[in-house]
Amino acid sequence: MSAEVEKKKVVLAYSGGLDTSCILVWLLENGYDVVTFLADVGQSEDFEAARAKAAILGASKMVIQDVKTEFVEEFIWPSIRANGLYEDRYPMGTALARPCIARAMIKVAKEEGAKYVAHGATGKGNDQIRFELSAYALHSTIEVISPWRLPEFYTRFKGRNDLFEYAKEKGIPLPVTQKDPWSIDANLMHISYESGILEDPQTHAPKKLYVMTTHPEDAPDVPTVLEIEFQKGLPVKVVNKDDGTTKTKALDLFIYCNEIGGKHGVGRIDIVENRFIGMKSRGIYETPGGTILLSAHMDLEVFTLDRELRKIKRKLDAEFAEQVYRGFWFSPEAEYTRRCIALSQDHVDGTVTVKVYKGGVYILGRASPHSLYNAELVSMNVQGDYEPTDAGGFIKINALRIREYQRLRASETSGK
Amino acid sequence: MSAEVEKKKVVLAYSGGLDTSCILVWLLENGYDVVTFLADVGQSEDFEAARAKAAILGASKMVIQDVKTEFVEEFIWPSIRANGLYEDRYPMGTALARPCIARAMIKVAKEEGAKYVAHGATGKGNDQIRFELSAYALHSTIEVISPWRLPEFYTRFKGRNDLFEYAKEKGIPLPVTQKDPWSIDANLMHISYESGILEDPQTHAPKKLYVMTTHPEDAPDVPTVLEIEFQKGLPVKVVNKDDGTTKTKALDLFIYCNEIGGKHGVGRIDIVENRFIGMKSRGIYETPGGTILLSAHMDLEVFTLDRELRKIKRKLDAEFAEQVYRGFWFSPEAEYTRRCIALSQDHVDGTVTVKVYKGGVYILGRASPHSLYNAELVSMNVQGDYEPTDAGGFIKINALRIREYQRLRASETSGK
Amino acid sequence: MSAEVEKKKVVLAYSGGLDTSCILVWLLENGYDVVTFLADVGQSEDFEAARAKAAILGASKMVIQDVKTEFVEEFIWPSIRANGLYEDRYPMGTALARPCIARAMIKVAKEEGAKYVAHGATGKGNDQIRFELSAYALHSTIEVISPWRLPEFYTRFKGRNDLFEYAKEKGIPLPVTQKDPWSIDANLMHISYESGILEDPQTHAPKKLYVMTTHPEDAPDVPTVLEIEFQKGLPVKVVNKDDGTTKTKALDLFIYCNEIGGKHGVGRIDIVENRFIGMKSRGIYETPGGTILLSAHMDLEVFTLDRELRKIKRKLDAEFAEQVYRGFWFSPEAEYTRRCIALSQDHVDGTVTVKVYKGGVYILGRASPHSLYNAELVSMNVQGDYEPTDAGGFIKINALRIREYQRLRASETSGK
Amino acid sequence: MSAEVEKKKVVLAYSGGLDTSCILVWLLENGYDVVTFLADVGQSEDFEAARAKAAILGASKMVIQDVKTEFVEEFIWPSIRANGLYEDRYPMGTALARPCIARAMIKVAKEEGAKYVAHGATGKGNDQIRFELSAYALHSTIEVISPWRLPEFYTRFKGRNDLFEYAKEKGIPLPVTQKDPWSIDANLMHISYESGILEDPQTHAPKKLYVMTTHPEDAPDVPTVLEIEFQKGLPVKVVNKDDGTTKTKALDLFIYCNEIGGKHGVGRIDIVENRFIGMKSRGIYETPGGTILLSAHMDLEVFTLDRELRKIKRKLDAEFAEQVYRGFWFSPEAEYTRRCIALSQDHVDGTVTVKVYKGGVYILGRASPHSLYNAELVSMNVQGDYEPTDAGGFIKINALRIREYQRLRASETSGK
Repeated sequence: MSAEVEKKKVVLAYSGGLDTSCILVWLLENGYDVVTFLADVGQSEDFEAARAKAAILGASKMVIQDVKTEFVEEFIWPSIRANGLYEDRYPMGTALARPCIARAMIKVAKEEGAKYVAHGATGKGNDQIRFELSAYALHSTIEVISPWRLPEFYTRFKGRNDLFEYAKEKGIPLPVTQKDPWSIDANLMHISYESGILEDPQTHAPKKLYVMTTHPEDAPDVPTVLEIEFQKGLPVKVVNKDDGTTKTKALDLFIYCNEIGGKHGVGRIDIVENRFIGMKSRGIYETPGGTILLSAHMDLEVFTLDRELRKIKRKLDAEFAEQVYRGFWFSPEAEYTRRCIALSQDHVDGTVTVKVYKGGVYILGRASPHSLYNAELVSMNVQGDYEPTDAGGFIKINALRIREYQRLRASETSGK
Repeated sequence: MSAEVEKKKVVLAYSGGLDTSCILVWLLENGYDVVTFLADVGQSEDFEAARAKAAILGASKMVIQDVKTEFVEEFIWPSIRANGLYEDRYPMGTALARPCIARAMIKVAKEEGAKYVAHGATGKGNDQIRFELSAYALHSTIEVISPWRLPEFYTRFKGRNDLFEYAKEKGIPLPVTQKDPWSIDANLMHISYESGILEDPQTHAPKKLYVMTTHPEDAPDVPTVLEIEFQKGLPVKVVNKDDGTTKTKALDLFIYCNEIGGKHGVGRIDIVENRFIGMKSRGIYETPGGTILLSAHMDLEVFTLDRELRKIKRKLDAEFAEQVYRGFWFSPEAEYTRRCIALSQDHVDGTVTVKVYKGGVYILGRASPHSLYNAELVSMNVQGDYEPTDAGGFIKINALRIREYQRLRASETSGK
Repeated sequence: MSAEVEKKKVVLAYSGGLDTSCILVWLLENGYDVVTFLADVGQSEDFEAARAKAAILGASKMVIQDVKTEFVEEFIWPSIRANGLYEDRYPMGTALARPCIARAMIKVAKEEGAKYVAHGATGKGNDQIRFELSAYALHSTIEVISPWRLPEFYTRFKGRNDLFEYAKEKGIPLPVTQKDPWSIDANLMHISYESGILEDPQTHAPKKLYVMTTHPEDAPDVPTVLEIEFQKGLPVKVVNKDDGTTKTKALDLFIYCNEIGGKHGVGRIDIVENRFIGMKSRGIYETPGGTILLSAHMDLEVFTLDRELRKIKRKLDAEFAEQVYRGFWFSPEAEYTRRCIALSQDHVDGTVTVKVYKGGVYILGRASPHSLYNAELVSMNVQGDYEPTDAGGFIKINALRIREYQRLRASETSGK
Repeated sequence: MSAEVEKKKVVLAYSGGLDTSCILVWLLENGYDVVTFLADVGQSEDFEAARAKAAILGASKMVIQDVKTEFVEEFIWPSIRANGLYEDRYPMGTALARPCIARAMIKVAKEEGAKYVAHGATGKGNDQIRFELSAYALHSTIEVISPWRLPEFYTRFKGRNDLFEYAKEKGIPLPVTQKDPWSIDANLMHISYESGILEDPQTHAPKKLYVMTTHPEDAPDVPTVLEIEFQKGLPVKVVNKDDGTTKTKALDLFIYCNEIGGKHGVGRIDIVENRFIGMKSRGIYETPGGTILLSAHMDLEVFTLDRELRKIKRKLDAEFAEQVYRGFWFSPEAEYTRRCIALSQDHVDGTVTVKVYKGGVYILGRASPHSLYNAELVSMNVQGDYEPTDAGGFIKINALRIREYQRLRASETSGK
């Protein structure tokens, strides 16, 4: 980093931890004016301690923003609507938070007149991509400093020990607790665990790893039953059928689903996934509330949407999941996909009843003012205006090309 | 039904129950020579009692065939490979059995020189379609008699009472047990429950409904851990890590997975699905072994397949599921889809460890001789020949069109 | 047809030709009160002669409606936006007209209080489906009379001769001109030719068959150059660069494109297509104006849409084409698809210059106020803020999983 | 470029032109031992002059390989089978040649023991990606030198003038002819033209630009009729119906199609396309033979493949086109896609007759021993074993969910 950048202002995504503290000091050392930024996306963090630490280390300013409500309403909610799962399994808690954080941070960069933003994401992961694609989309001339991709940084700090040395040397307070032998990312939607001892995909995750969810074996022996109401595909009310607890505000509702899901051990997965960067990576995730809501939404969607419309929408869902995972939230295609998905949800209204028990989410029933479900039509005991003979014609016509095909193949075979 | 069909031979799919017994007698009454056919696909049935009953009622012959092994190897296995779920949730136990049964039955029809086959499926369901499309595909000149779609039959037998009356009149033995207030289809892979009191999609399924699986609340407090080995995407060994039980033959292995899954309450779903015929229908399913194997296969597949290859393969999976559900097993497109899916599984070899507990299936770890997972490459502590700076270029190039897009949009907005 | 339908009112899609005249008389004979309906979708027809003939034959009323403008604006335009081609080649002139005609006719049925509609489409084609699905969608209790599917009709009228005999007997005026040895469907968008001598897919279509287009060999030796302007993906202006002729009203513009395309022999295709009913069918089509506009729209769309957005939109286009071809215009999925496609066209504004010559449409250039095309960025001579080194990183990261894959395969092979 | 690479061996893709001659000298200047490589993919080139020039400039060896046959059989043929068009229009002549050339060159690098390969592709284009992804796939430890992405190169040679100066200084023979104001890539399949005056997407391509094809206005007034035979989706014979000329060897056949197509002005397109790198680029292409064969193959494919099988296959085609365009020929997903596509072509056998005239390719008819086309079944005059009444049931059942949908929407609207 040359002298020319001296006094240039950078907004640094700062957590208060060892890595970003070292980066903060290193940026100062390289002549930057550093504004630290910390978004509250629901992680458990001592925000004021982080603020104090940033000040001590030399940040010219510390901006802490609570973006929990927008995280739920503008990022998690669209993903519920989109049945958002990456590679069929991962509810994308981290991937959804990144554009939310990046957007808040870019806003600060604009307000502060900073031409640079910096982050502590590694050079092998998805988060650097998610962060930077969002940044470039929202501020096309912003420049990104990613120390873990700069040779002058990563050849200097080859491992955790080098950071410790640097911290000691620079008077950066060291973490008091022993670091877990894996890395963590936490927010309102989930906690992810990866690397360290988890890098061996055969190693079972230790029981003590999990933070948001009770071990299913230790979860209550009595299930909880929830009634979840959706309007236009978005959760608008959760009622605990046992004690009547009711939540209607988006953030409250989501936190409550986390609480119930967490208590019952819901939403744990252990997967190997394909990073955008091209490598396979093993991750453990716990997504208690999200798992409940995804399950309920899916149920209501099949109940209320026309079959063929839903088939088209499910292809858009697949696009959505990949866009989010890969960091393209603010891309033209992702904006378009979300608009199309939103269009599909006009009639996804109704209530789903779910039982939560020992790690499982069980649908018990559903109701909707707009369901295409017609109990009379489907009934085996009611004829209605359904003509069974029509089905014969339907089958015969569907068989037409198959019979032609088999007839041709048979004639070819017999001719040999 | 006119006089001209007298003495014509028909093969009837016969279960020994009230409906098909009445159909048998009705066919005789209409001058047919009736060969009854009963396939053993793993349902619990008193086959000899059914044989005796058919003889008493006047069938000229009763053919009972055990097709369990081919059901597993030729129908369930391809579906495991295809991660076969209809509308994201239903493992298609019934849909997979139908073409297996139809194939066996058409073979009998050919052997018997019968120009007709008959079945007792209703005129509103999927099974008539699955049965008949298979029949037409495998025997292009066969004629199908579907009494529940013939006005002379369904106007005569308007409900269960009419069948009872007819049975009494014709000396057909009546069922000794009270019929459940829902209908059932059972085979090795699953039991399905629908109609009757289940037609109201809000009604919770009663606890006593389930046959294959223990109620999760009543399941053992201690999990079972299984190690499942796959070769080319097919299960070839299951080992119970607690007691060492090992199964390697396809049928044994599948039955054992059912046993363990059933004991732990695995594989229950309550869904509304979209029938091919166009109506929504509510079904309860329990698929214990299938659910375990689907979960393990999915895990190994992501672990061993290249990301982009798998994305293409997953679209084929979606085609597969719809083909199977709709009854097109023997169609040109389904044969093609299965061949393509099989091609993708060449390297899906390895072992997945799963914990089964109180209704849940939890992946604990996986290993493969062919995994593209590279622990060194992904490690945060090892540089390897990965150049972090490359990621910067990767991101910048990916951002190119997004920045152009946002720049254009911004210029348009500012120009207004 | 039983006595109970006597005096019941039916609206018959009536062309004035032999078939529908016979059907008109046959319906009267069967006791119906027949209102004849004829939509002007741009076919060349002597409408007043048809009106007179209907009156003579006994129709209680003849309704003739000019739906040309709505055909262009509400059916052809959405298809231009959707780059509407069935099986990659057929611009669907007939398929687009059917729902337009059916909608107008159902409106008449409602106004007339008719509980029946009737049409003369054959029982093997697509048009019966397009017509009836539209009818059922727009009037869920309407009943459709399709004589060519009624045994009492089609066993009585086995061929053209039987119709001739019936016409003579009933005093129906016979056609004065010799029928072409193929059947025709004509409207503003195209003329289709099928059956008769065309049924042999090897037979070349005779030169005299074509009506809308000049034989390319006989077309002018001098090309015509058109400038076509689009707003939101819809054509809004066509200018003939040679003589300055300008058209801006949708219907005028489309007719003018037909005129120019027709003069230059544009839009002829000879294909075998797959009918919804399951059989393959050979058709010859000429779609002069539509071909020009589809070509121009496609060009502008690639020019103005983001690459990835367009990829998603193209999948919706494929759904659109199939929905239209199969007759599902008024289905939930088709309404949804059209809404999503419309959303994608917000910035498809600009002008495309095309040369039309001897059957070909050649794009000469294009311009747009919203194009993402950035001449400076793409220039080989201008560096801009593009960093060539980024491309190296981009490639390396894209190569990552491929190298892993090849490394693994190589190690497996060498190990054998 | 540091001293450590001195004496290291590099294989340079060398054309004999100014750019790669300068790169050759520059590599020598930087201490490399340079083996030049030139693949004959059908471009018109004075190969021996290039060889002499390389020797004069100091290459230690010049390898010239004729890969035309493998280019046709292993790259163009699979693309014909896949109906290979990028973004619906571009037949990908350049994209198909790159992996062919790269494979030959990597083979040379292995034989020569070279650890480096170099090329003269620009840093903004697709070819660098196609070349390098192929190289990395086939030789996972190869290192690529791409001078136009190296700051020490591209900051030294900012434009054509700098290359001229360098050439003069180093004694590199200067081109004797004036360079066209656009750049060209030529091979057996096509010639592409881009950049320079073509960078303005509104500028019409000048008539003199085209090399492979006659201007349609100047093409013969008499069409040529070809009969093209396919086996398993690959062209195996072309017969000129006018003069009886017959070609059966892949390379001969393709060259002959080029000749006929070129003479009649077939295969010119002017498009804006989306590069993988993210920018839009304008290109003019002429692909005479490829356009004829793609058109004929498409026709035969619809004729011989089952409708639903083909729908699935067409999605694979879309994957294929994107894989090829983006340079992923040797990726796992592309290998898989090609295998699946090949599977689909088992019965794509038969003959297509096409007329070629003034820029157009017109299908006149087709025949196949395996077609699913059944003239009797589709005939309007033959009943066959088709029951028209079945179509009524087919339509009614298809209408079921649409009627339900409209009924629900109507009841909601009326309730408001």
